[in-house]
Amino acid sequence: MTFKFDNVYIKDIDIVVGQNEKKGPLGSYFKNSYQDFYFEEKTWEQAESKIAFETIRNLLNRNQVDLLIGGDLLNQLTATSFAARNFKIPFLGIYNACATSNEGIVLASSFIDKKLANNIIVNVSSHNNAAEKQFRYPVEYGGPKPQLTTFTVTGSVGVVLSNEKSKIKVESGTIGKVVDYGIKDAYEMGAVMAPACAQTIYEHLKSLNRTIDYYDLVLSGDLGEVGKKILKEFIKKEYNINLKNYNDCGTMIYNIRKQSVYSGGSGPACAPLVVYSYIIDEMKKGNLKRVLVVTTGALHSTTTVNQKETIPSIAHAISLEVAM
Amino acid sequence: MTFKFDNVYIKDIDIVVGQNEKKGPLGSYFKNSYQDFYFEEKTWEQAESKIAFETIRNLLNRNQVDLLIGGDLLNQLTATSFAARNFKIPFLGIYNACATSNEGIVLASSFIDKKLANNIIVNVSSHNNAAEKQFRYPVEYGGPKPQLTTFTVTGSVGVVLSNEKSKIKVESGTIGKVVDYGIKDAYEMGAVMAPACAQTIYEHLKSLNRTIDYYDLVLSGDLGEVGKKILKEFIKKEYNINLKNYNDCGTMIYNIRKQSVYSGGSGPACAPLVVYSYIIDEMKKGNLKRVLVVTTGALHSTTTVNQKETIPSIAHAISLEVAM
Repeated sequence: MTFKFDNVYIKDIDIVVGQNEKKGPLGSYFKNSYQDFYFEEKTWEQAESKIAFETIRNLLNRNQVDLLIGGDLLNQLTATSFAARNFKIPFLGIYNACATSNEGIVLASSFIDKKLANNIIVNVSSHNNAAEKQFRYPVEYGGPKPQLTTFTVTGSVGVVLSNEKSKIKVESGTIGKVVDYGIKDAYEMGAVMAPACAQTIYEHLKSLNRTIDYYDLVLSGDLGEVGKKILKEFIKKEYNINLKNYNDCGTMIYNIRKQSVYSGGSGPACAPLVVYSYIIDEMKKGNLKRVLVVTTGALHSTTTVNQKETIPSIAHAISLEVAM
Repeated sequence: MTFKFDNVYIKDIDIVVGQNEKKGPLGSYFKNSYQDFYFEEKTWEQAESKIAFETIRNLLNRNQVDLLIGGDLLNQLTATSFAARNFKIPFLGIYNACATSNEGIVLASSFIDKKLANNIIVNVSSHNNAAEKQFRYPVEYGGPKPQLTTFTVTGSVGVVLSNEKSKIKVESGTIGKVVDYGIKDAYEMGAVMAPACAQTIYEHLKSLNRTIDYYDLVLSGDLGEVGKKILKEFIKKEYNINLKNYNDCGTMIYNIRKQSVYSGGSGPACAPLVVYSYIIDEMKKGNLKRVLVVTTGALHSTTTVNQKETIPSIAHAISLEVAM
């Protein structure tokens, strides 16, 4: 399901990250960061909620906003809800795992394009330790993991979408469908999500009657090095699409060779950390004109994995363009 | 944030319930029900996903649908996502706890009213045992609970909203704000959610320049008997609103005196089970013309409760009218 938007622009961005993201190749783009994982709070969950609070607060201080749409990886989306309770602003909680950010952008863009709102914040966050604790093992175990797994980013990213003209436009968006290729291993996120990513790219191009070279760059959300290879092969074989000017945000947020992040970054904040810093900057500089961002989410829980269920996934796409 | 809708109608409804709901006072409205809590599946989580699957499937069999919006109480919304993987339909996962259904109705109505879609399914589910297991204690413990707690309903409710005229119209919707009155006891859901409910009713009326007697009936989602009393007192004191033609869906879905359900029903499916069966029927019969439904959600997780955090809540309102 694809929408074209005529009057939706990125008005403001606010980002807070943890130490690993600050030390990564895009570190210079992140002005606000914390040195440890607690951010002066007592727990990792409170820490995540704190940075979600900070990005939302900073955007509200600089903008008149009608609505907050947001989500995170924590059970019951508490990072976002607990941040939202500090502000008197209408709130909609959304969840499609690491595809959440584009779910929010498509919803917000639809509302703005149809004049239901003037300015909407979309905020997503994730926290490595809080996610590890919830989804895997106690972090203190230090258990080794397979190299194909990914590393949840620590960060909060808020974006104000607006009908007020700016340099960057949200030109269109595609809502994806749930796919399930029968994978049960929760470490194989790249393989789980690559088919959903491929399907959404295909449907986006088809519904807008475009070929892949319409875009200067195609970015997947957080497939990592392993999933990136799978996507390229899969989308060629299944849909005959040659991904040339393509990269994966999970492979861009860290220096994979030097930082111990396995196959790369992941989490709802992973793609937004890359897109709303470096990519937007490149677009403003004129180095990129049209960028397709496809965020990818794995829709399992620890319960479903323990019950030996296969893992469904979904991907949503947005097209960002330098405004004329 | 309130929207008025001109062309949004309820086109179709599908409901599957468990045994307690079938045995309740509205049982005759529920054609499809299961006798046990497993629904021929191995686990309660799979059982919940099965009924979510069934209501969505039944609606898709009878309707052309553009988009599925839905959510549930399970961590990472797996009941809904796992149901959605069976259908090739665009999917948006949403979560505002027991306020989720109206979140979906407002989103879907906005999309339909602005011609972004013709038909959208909003589906919500909950399952008593799956919720108890996740949020409280192993069900087998049989631990006693305070009388003010509520009992999560078992059921799945799917609604098709459409631009096609029908007898029942979604006339307007209000997106609520997160409030937190400092309650830490996860059994006191009524008290936690009543202030959010009051605030949303107040903002709904104010933004549409209406008084409460505009509505033949005001329904809160799942405050239960205890929360219902709190709401009536609180909304009088805080906003000078006299709730006269008012009831709470949590007190209507069960026979509270005979069924062991404490203060009443709760869960994302609670209000929809009452509204999209009995209430819609009363509207079709001409006994009710305008109904305001306010679903209420508590936004905590087991982690935040264990960390001694207070519990934020939210409420979203929709106005249903008999179409002219």
